[in-house]
Amino acid sequence: MTEILRPEADELRAVAHRMADAARPEILKHFRSSTLHVDSKTDDFDPVTVADRAAETAMREILEAARPNDAIVGEEFGNKEGSSGLTWILDPIDGTRAFVAGTPCWGVLIALADDTGPIVGIIDQPYIGERFEGGFGHAAVTGPRGTTPLRVREPQPLHDAIVLTTFPEVGTPDEGAAFHRVASEAKLTRYGMDCYGYALLAAGQVDLVIEAGLQIYDIAAPIGVIQAAGGIVTNWEGGADLTGGRVVAAANQDILQQALVRLSADGSKSAS
Amino acid sequence: MTEILRPEADELRAVAHRMADAARPEILKHFRSSTLHVDSKTDDFDPVTVADRAAETAMREILEAARPNDAIVGEEFGNKEGSSGLTWILDPIDGTRAFVAGTPCWGVLIALADDTGPIVGIIDQPYIGERFEGGFGHAAVTGPRGTTPLRVREPQPLHDAIVLTTFPEVGTPDEGAAFHRVASEAKLTRYGMDCYGYALLAAGQVDLVIEAGLQIYDIAAPIGVIQAAGGIVTNWEGGADLTGGRVVAAANQDILQQALVRLSADGSKSAS
Repeated sequence: MTEILRPEADELRAVAHRMADAARPEILKHFRSSTLHVDSKTDDFDPVTVADRAAETAMREILEAARPNDAIVGEEFGNKEGSSGLTWILDPIDGTRAFVAGTPCWGVLIALADDTGPIVGIIDQPYIGERFEGGFGHAAVTGPRGTTPLRVREPQPLHDAIVLTTFPEVGTPDEGAAFHRVASEAKLTRYGMDCYGYALLAAGQVDLVIEAGLQIYDIAAPIGVIQAAGGIVTNWEGGADLTGGRVVAAANQDILQQALVRLSADGSKSAS
Repeated sequence: MTEILRPEADELRAVAHRMADAARPEILKHFRSSTLHVDSKTDDFDPVTVADRAAETAMREILEAARPNDAIVGEEFGNKEGSSGLTWILDPIDGTRAFVAGTPCWGVLIALADDTGPIVGIIDQPYIGERFEGGFGHAAVTGPRGTTPLRVREPQPLHDAIVLTTFPEVGTPDEGAAFHRVASEAKLTRYGMDCYGYALLAAGQVDLVIEAGLQIYDIAAPIGVIQAAGGIVTNWEGGADLTGGRVVAAANQDILQQALVRLSADGSKSAS
């Protein structure tokens, strides 16, 4: 791990918050606007708004001035090499579909990673005015009710657990089937939360978030927040490599193991 | 329609807002609480919290004092007869599952109906501090960005439309299939919004909300808000009788007709 001393840690946290502060107005001026401009990056429905681009631009300007030697991975404007050993990972609007539909469950994602992975994460919801933060010994949410600590939920059996994902189909048919092996045994499954679901896990409200098809910029900030709140994020085999896009976030090792056994190929065999 | 003169209309609106104001703290003191008490009204998962009951009690106390001759239909404490020709229809927490999972997409529903149906509706989201109101010539949302008018979206083809429902299965297998005949042709389908979806329709953010299995207290307030914003709420045959629980809320007649033809039995035949 890159050695980060306390003064630099404080500076890095301050930079992250300034980036989130800068992104808010750029995005909110377009949220629930009747003239919202929606592009399509691919043939599939993948809206990218002017808000998305303006927010990433605002965040990158702050980094250029304050942290010129750090690397950047951005959802909208790609990668920038660095020399400090630190990388900022930015998704200006995670949940563009949620955003386009006017819901309050999209978010601005800001992560800071070193060679061990994400060490700081921010999930910001500009419309609610709610910011979930984890890293450097902090784990807190600041929102309509002030600032309160973030702490994941205590272990409980799967049949009492709350499970979240964004899309009912989850991913491929196999991925959907694996998810439903977990969800069918849980007390409650909810859909449509995007990054807000990871924030709820860090806040002790839900036990599992299981998704597929994620990019690193979708999950880096949630990892920072969840780890700081005492939770765990792995791939569907329990490993740290998330490049396959299959992610399980868990409130504790107990519920993680109950999910993994059902997500795995063995779970597939025993269920068929 | 019961004749309501301007001074009484102003009083009725004021009472509705006082009820919503009174419900907020009763609910928020239990929202995202780690000691949330969840009952089960039936064998199915149907959580009812102390918050639900405390909020309806607070609202009924206001009605007993201010409007003793009005009838009440409440989700938690049942019906009270009245003599004024006016009925208040209350759902203290619509979206109890969303509430239990900590999401910000549940709401307090308050409707006032006469013999023609709902004439006033409030959809209140206490955590965000956001209130959607319609009736007596008003249609507005007051929230993090102040007060702005509510107005439904202009007509557009189904392939550009955004469709919402709460549960991916919608209702029975037939109801689910009918829903997916509409959703499969839309640009975007989102899940998990409960009453907040109707608020988004009134706010011009989405084109259709289609659900099944609803009770009158789930839909009375959304009808008040949506009608005031220029939208339409019918059953799946285009009629006004919602006792069957199948509801389609539409931004305009155009998109309503496109939905109805696909929801109907004829749509079922042509799709098979």
